[in-house]
Amino acid sequence: MDRAACERLDRECPLAHCRERFTLPDGVLYFDGNSLGALPKATAADIERLIRTEWGQGLVESWLDADWFFLARSTGDAIAPLIGASAGEVIVADSTSVNMFKLAAALLRRSEGRRRVVAERGNFPTVTYVLEGLVGLFGERFDLALADTAQIPGAIDERTALTALTHVNFRTGAMHDMARITAHCHAQGVPVIWDLSHSAGAVPLALNRWGVEYAVGCTYKFLNGGPGAPAYVYMAESAIAAHEPAVTGWFAHADQFGFEDRFRPAETIEKCLVGTPPVLSLRAVRHGIACFDGVTMEGIADKLRSLSDLLIRLVAERLADCGFVLATPRQPAARGSQVSFRHPHAYAVSKALRAENVVVDFRSPDILRFGIAPLYIRHVDVWDAADALARIMAGERWKAHVTDAPDPVT
Amino acid sequence: MDRAACERLDRECPLAHCRERFTLPDGVLYFDGNSLGALPKATAADIERLIRTEWGQGLVESWLDADWFFLARSTGDAIAPLIGASAGEVIVADSTSVNMFKLAAALLRRSEGRRRVVAERGNFPTVTYVLEGLVGLFGERFDLALADTAQIPGAIDERTALTALTHVNFRTGAMHDMARITAHCHAQGVPVIWDLSHSAGAVPLALNRWGVEYAVGCTYKFLNGGPGAPAYVYMAESAIAAHEPAVTGWFAHADQFGFEDRFRPAETIEKCLVGTPPVLSLRAVRHGIACFDGVTMEGIADKLRSLSDLLIRLVAERLADCGFVLATPRQPAARGSQVSFRHPHAYAVSKALRAENVVVDFRSPDILRFGIAPLYIRHVDVWDAADALARIMAGERWKAHVTDAPDPVT
Repeated sequence: MDRAACERLDRECPLAHCRERFTLPDGVLYFDGNSLGALPKATAADIERLIRTEWGQGLVESWLDADWFFLARSTGDAIAPLIGASAGEVIVADSTSVNMFKLAAALLRRSEGRRRVVAERGNFPTVTYVLEGLVGLFGERFDLALADTAQIPGAIDERTALTALTHVNFRTGAMHDMARITAHCHAQGVPVIWDLSHSAGAVPLALNRWGVEYAVGCTYKFLNGGPGAPAYVYMAESAIAAHEPAVTGWFAHADQFGFEDRFRPAETIEKCLVGTPPVLSLRAVRHGIACFDGVTMEGIADKLRSLSDLLIRLVAERLADCGFVLATPRQPAARGSQVSFRHPHAYAVSKALRAENVVVDFRSPDILRFGIAPLYIRHVDVWDAADALARIMAGERWKAHVTDAPDPVT
Repeated sequence: MDRAACERLDRECPLAHCRERFTLPDGVLYFDGNSLGALPKATAADIERLIRTEWGQGLVESWLDADWFFLARSTGDAIAPLIGASAGEVIVADSTSVNMFKLAAALLRRSEGRRRVVAERGNFPTVTYVLEGLVGLFGERFDLALADTAQIPGAIDERTALTALTHVNFRTGAMHDMARITAHCHAQGVPVIWDLSHSAGAVPLALNRWGVEYAVGCTYKFLNGGPGAPAYVYMAESAIAAHEPAVTGWFAHADQFGFEDRFRPAETIEKCLVGTPPVLSLRAVRHGIACFDGVTMEGIADKLRSLSDLLIRLVAERLADCGFVLATPRQPAARGSQVSFRHPHAYAVSKALRAENVVVDFRSPDILRFGIAPLYIRHVDVWDAADALARIMAGERWKAHVTDAPDPVT
C-alpha cells in the first residue's frame, strides 16, 4: 500500500463527488467531523438570504411565507431516511440533552412499579446527567444505576423502568448492536431511548426495522448542521399516540394560535416540540442533510470500512513500535465512524498533529481519536495523516506538547 | 396635531439615530416588533463570517478560537443592564418555555408542604402549559390553579408553592407591577418566576432593585435577536448557590470535558445551561443587544410613552365612530410596549392594514395589536398607520377580508 494506491481508491470511490459538496480549508486534514461536521457549500448563501431577505424584508410574515413554521417537521422528514425511519416520525427541536429529558420524563411518568433506571458508565455522559437530574425530580420513586458496557444488556431486566443508551462510544468507537439490545429490552418490558449523535449519517441505521421506539440525536456531527445546530427526536409511529408530553410548550399545542388556557397536545410528532425554534440554526440543518442526496447508507458503510481499515493497517505497519494500541473494534459491524488509539501521550500527540494541520481529538485519559466522515474524507487524507503521525513520532515532535493543559474542545 | 408636528417630534427625538441601526423594508410600517424584532444592520455580515470563516475554515477549533464556548455567558452579560441585573446573573440558552421548565422544576423539587402552583389565566399561555406538564410530572404532589388577572397577587398566599407570571399581557399590553407583586410573593414565602418576553428592551426593568430572584425571557422580540433566537435565564446572585438544576446536561457540568460519570453542576449561572447551544442563532442575539448601545431605558420609556399616547390620541380623534375600544391602559406605568384596540372585525381590519403595508397583529378573539418598538418606530410612522386605518375604515376596505381564516403568525 502506498499513496498512489490511495489515490486510485479515491478515483474509484462512488462517493468521491460528495466531497465537492463541502467547503474545506486548504491544507487541513479534518478528522474531527464526528465533533463538528464540515461546512456544506450551500449553507452560507442560504442563511444570508434568510437573514437579509426573509427576516430583514419579510419580517414576521416569513413565519408563513418562508415556511419557518414547518422547518422543524420538514427537516425531520429529511433526516428520516438516514436513520431508517418514516416521514412523520422525526422532528428537529432543542438540544440532544433536552430531547432526552423530554422522552425520559414522559416514559418514567407512565412507568408502573419498577424502580430502576439503567444507563451506561463510560459512554458520553450527558445521557447519564440528564437521567440523574430527572430521577432526582421524581423524588424516591426511581434509582439510577450505572452499568459497565460489558453488562449491557444483561443489567436491563424485569426490574428496569427505563434505559437510555448511546449507540457509539465516544472514546473507543465501539458500537452497540441496536437491534439485539432493543429486542432484549422489549422482551423485558423496558422502554429504551437511543442516542444516535455519534452514528446517524455515518453508519446504516434501520430504526423501524429494528423495532426502535424512541431515539434522539444531534445534527452537528455527521449531519453537518453547523455548531450547536438543533437536535432531533424520533418516535416510532406506533408510539406517538400513547406519548403524553411532560415538557409542554405552545409549539406542541393542537391549536397553537388559539391560545387556550389548557395544554392540548398535537396528535402528531409535533407533540415533541416545546418553544420557538432557532430558525437560523435550524435552517442550516437542511443543507447538511442535503449533502446525502443520492447516497445510500450502504455506500457510506462501504467507504467507512475502507477508510477505517486503511488507517488501522497503516498505523499497525508504520507505527508498530510507537505505543499505539487500537481501542476501536476491528470488526466493521462493531464500530462506528471513528478509529481510536490509546497512547500514554495521546494528548501531546493530538496537539502535535493539530500543529501539522491534522485535526484530531484527544479524549481523556489516553485516547487519540480520528473521526471518519465518509462524505468528505479521502483515502489520501488517511495516508497523509498516518504519514504525519509517523513523522511526529519519529522526530519526537509530540514532546513539545507534553506540558500543555488539555483544552475544552468537544 | 398633524403630520408636520410628528416630523418635528422625530427630529427632536434623542433616539432618532437608533433607527439607522436596523434594516427596514421600504414602504412598510412595522408594528410587529413585539412579535419579531427588526433586523440589525450588523447581523448578516457577522453571521456570514461565522459560517464561512469560523465554521468553514476554523472548524471545531472555533469553539475556543472564536469564543463560541463563551457566547451564552457574554451575551447574558450584555442583556443584564437592560433588565436591571448584574453580570453573572443572566445566561442565554434554550427557549423561553424550556427555561421556564428548568427554573420551575428546580423550585418545585425543593418546595415543602405547599400544594398549589398559581398561574394567570388569559395571559400568554405557554407559562401555563409548561407548569401544567411539570405539575403532571410530580404526580399528586401539586395542583395548578389559574387565577384571573384581577386576582393577582391576592390568589398567591401561604398555600402557594410557586407562581410564574408574564410581565406584560400579550393581548392588552397591561403590565403587572413587578416590584409590588414580587414583594407580596416573598412576604407569603412564594418563589416567583417572571417571563419578560414582552417587556425586556421596551420598558425599564430593575430586577435587582425590585428583589426579583428568577426570570426568563425571549430575545427575538424587542431584543432583535432574530427568529426563534435562544432565550435567557436570569437568577439573582443570591439565588444561584441554592439552585440545584433539574434539567442537567453537560454544558452545566463543573468540569465539562472531564466526562465524569456523575453530574456536578457549575457554581455559576452556567449551571442553567443544558446542551450545546445553537451558535448561529445565539451569535445573532449579540447584534440585537448592541442596538441598545448608549441608550438609557429611561430614554426608551420616554419615547414609548410619546408614541403610544400619540396612537391612542389619533385613533380617538380620527376614528371616533369606528368601533375601536382601547384595550391598553392609559397610564404609561400600567402598560408595556404595545397599544391594543378591541374591534368586532379586528381580524379583517388587521388583514386590510397588512394589505396596505402596515404590519400589525390580530389576537383572538377581537384584538388589533400595534407593537411599539421605540428603537425604530417614528412618530410619522404612527401618524401614517393611523391615517391608513382611517382610510380603511372610511372606505370599508376591511370588508374584503372578513371571510379569511386567521393565519397562525405569532
